[in-house]
Amino acid sequence: MKAYVMDAQGNHSLQERPKPTLIDDSDVIVKIEKTTICGTDLHILRGNVSTFKSDTILGHEGVGVVQECGSRVSKYKPGDRVIISCITSCGSCSMCQKSQFGQCINGGWILGNEIDGCQAEYVRIPYGDNSLFHAPEDIDSESLVFLSDIFPTGYEVGVLDGKLKPADSVAIIGCGPVGLAALMTAKFFSPSKIYAIDNNPHRLDAAKELGATHTINNSENTAVDQVLDITDDVGVDVVIEAIGIPAGWDMSQKLVRPGGNIAVLGVHGKSATINLEDMWKRNFTMTAGLVHTYTTPALIKQIRAGHLHPEKLCTHHFPLSETDKAYDTFINAEKHNALKVMITNS
Amino acid sequence: MKAYVMDAQGNHSLQERPKPTLIDDSDVIVKIEKTTICGTDLHILRGNVSTFKSDTILGHEGVGVVQECGSRVSKYKPGDRVIISCITSCGSCSMCQKSQFGQCINGGWILGNEIDGCQAEYVRIPYGDNSLFHAPEDIDSESLVFLSDIFPTGYEVGVLDGKLKPADSVAIIGCGPVGLAALMTAKFFSPSKIYAIDNNPHRLDAAKELGATHTINNSENTAVDQVLDITDDVGVDVVIEAIGIPAGWDMSQKLVRPGGNIAVLGVHGKSATINLEDMWKRNFTMTAGLVHTYTTPALIKQIRAGHLHPEKLCTHHFPLSETDKAYDTFINAEKHNALKVMITNS
Repeated sequence: MKAYVMDAQGNHSLQERPKPTLIDDSDVIVKIEKTTICGTDLHILRGNVSTFKSDTILGHEGVGVVQECGSRVSKYKPGDRVIISCITSCGSCSMCQKSQFGQCINGGWILGNEIDGCQAEYVRIPYGDNSLFHAPEDIDSESLVFLSDIFPTGYEVGVLDGKLKPADSVAIIGCGPVGLAALMTAKFFSPSKIYAIDNNPHRLDAAKELGATHTINNSENTAVDQVLDITDDVGVDVVIEAIGIPAGWDMSQKLVRPGGNIAVLGVHGKSATINLEDMWKRNFTMTAGLVHTYTTPALIKQIRAGHLHPEKLCTHHFPLSETDKAYDTFINAEKHNALKVMITNS
Repeated sequence: MKAYVMDAQGNHSLQERPKPTLIDDSDVIVKIEKTTICGTDLHILRGNVSTFKSDTILGHEGVGVVQECGSRVSKYKPGDRVIISCITSCGSCSMCQKSQFGQCINGGWILGNEIDGCQAEYVRIPYGDNSLFHAPEDIDSESLVFLSDIFPTGYEVGVLDGKLKPADSVAIIGCGPVGLAALMTAKFFSPSKIYAIDNNPHRLDAAKELGATHTINNSENTAVDQVLDITDDVGVDVVIEAIGIPAGWDMSQKLVRPGGNIAVLGVHGKSATINLEDMWKRNFTMTAGLVHTYTTPALIKQIRAGHLHPEKLCTHHFPLSETDKAYDTFINAEKHNALKVMITNS
């Protein structure tokens, strides 16, 4: 089968690989219908993900059709259409029993990282009963692919961990796909102000289109001053950091109001400075972590209710055979005005 | 009257000062019966508190008797015994209306910092109706003085903000008075394990006496290894950082289990490093902030119920005339095996 792989030298390319087979009784083999590329895949390409095993097939997002099930799989059968969770979870360890599937002791984020992933014709999903969702027939595949990772991530790690409440103000630092997913799901809580911050005018236009009340261009590092100016130096109730660089954390500290929350969504590759000498007395809360994908069923309901349109983030389409081109487009997103790219295994 | 003052050169001494008078209609003048010294006073002496105004009378804790009330004071009358809150709050600003009295726009922690404090014969308390509590006659004054600050701080900023739950494990980093106050109030939630960490054997003995299940001596910087060893490398559910130095924050990051909470109690004077490259994926929560003293009434109930004995932290007694000696004892706590010192205005 065709599969997109990164080797130990950092070269990534479409290769021929053997089709996966059942290894464990809980495995499910899925034929991929659609997949996509995540910002985290780019972190892997840059060598920022220490757990990545060379020669692993990339990708942790996808919609497909079940081909074969291990003997202990009870929720799925061949022919079922499924959404693949980016999180593989056993369902029975101490962390899964607390619904903290991202911290599953036997799984977690392993797909396209420690085990072969979804940017291929087929994928093996361990613990299939806990790591897949039934794909509703009434929702388009392109929306559903984005429920594998970025929408649950934006919603759980950004909006819910940030404890956004109706009428709150929220700042989204970084309007890449996951920042925009946070923005779109933040709207469930009817925030009074949504400050979208980025350096890229195209992304700020997208944020505006998707509901930002204020778009703040930070190309001259003035975003903090601009927002503090608008808020009479108070800051915002909830800051969602969605870039994953020390400067994003630093802006978060400066933008959160006393008593407010910072939710770190970004995949950070470096340490940052926490100004405890200023922050100790600010009664702030910060959260950071992996998605658990426990909200995927709720997000399906929100699509059906017309409250969420994940497909709006899709700007480019490629067949699996052109995955190289898809990566080039996603890596050079600014040049291509790209948000999410859709890869179809036809 | 006698009052303990620090000047612009950092000299601190007992001086003669005029007795305070009513300035605003909401003021209450209190005759101090007992006061104490807080770790934060030592931060002032070291020049770590940028808001401190030279020549201000120190101290933000005390029990006393109301002498005089402004015309708008309705809850207190001359002769009432009161506990002074370390937090002065107007009760009507946007922060007070959210019960975030520590962030009161018109007050906050100003006592013994921006305005004259409690280490004196008399003190003026602005917004008396919101900044005092009636002192119950059935509880000894020495316990009540510790409800001005350290017990609400340990409980609110440590235990409650850290979201400790029954059967959780908790690590207290730093067993000074506020760390021990956190330990004593953590016991309300019946944690399964209490790891008390300090370099000082006397403080560790006190922690043991007060209910620590494990005392961890960190004099050779092995506390993290010791606790991770005991917890099979998982870490603890709630970490309460009660020293206020970068090393305390660093230990907190290393000790918190995936999905756990870090509550920063310490008054930090310097920035620290946040290892977001490790922490972004750990689903942890951190909190830091000022006490609001909203739990003082609940702590009074816990003393009455026999669940809390604040007086156990009192190791040394001095008359107000010997406040210099009280400071010397508190500054050199290790030499004197001191926890809290009690200063009586007789």
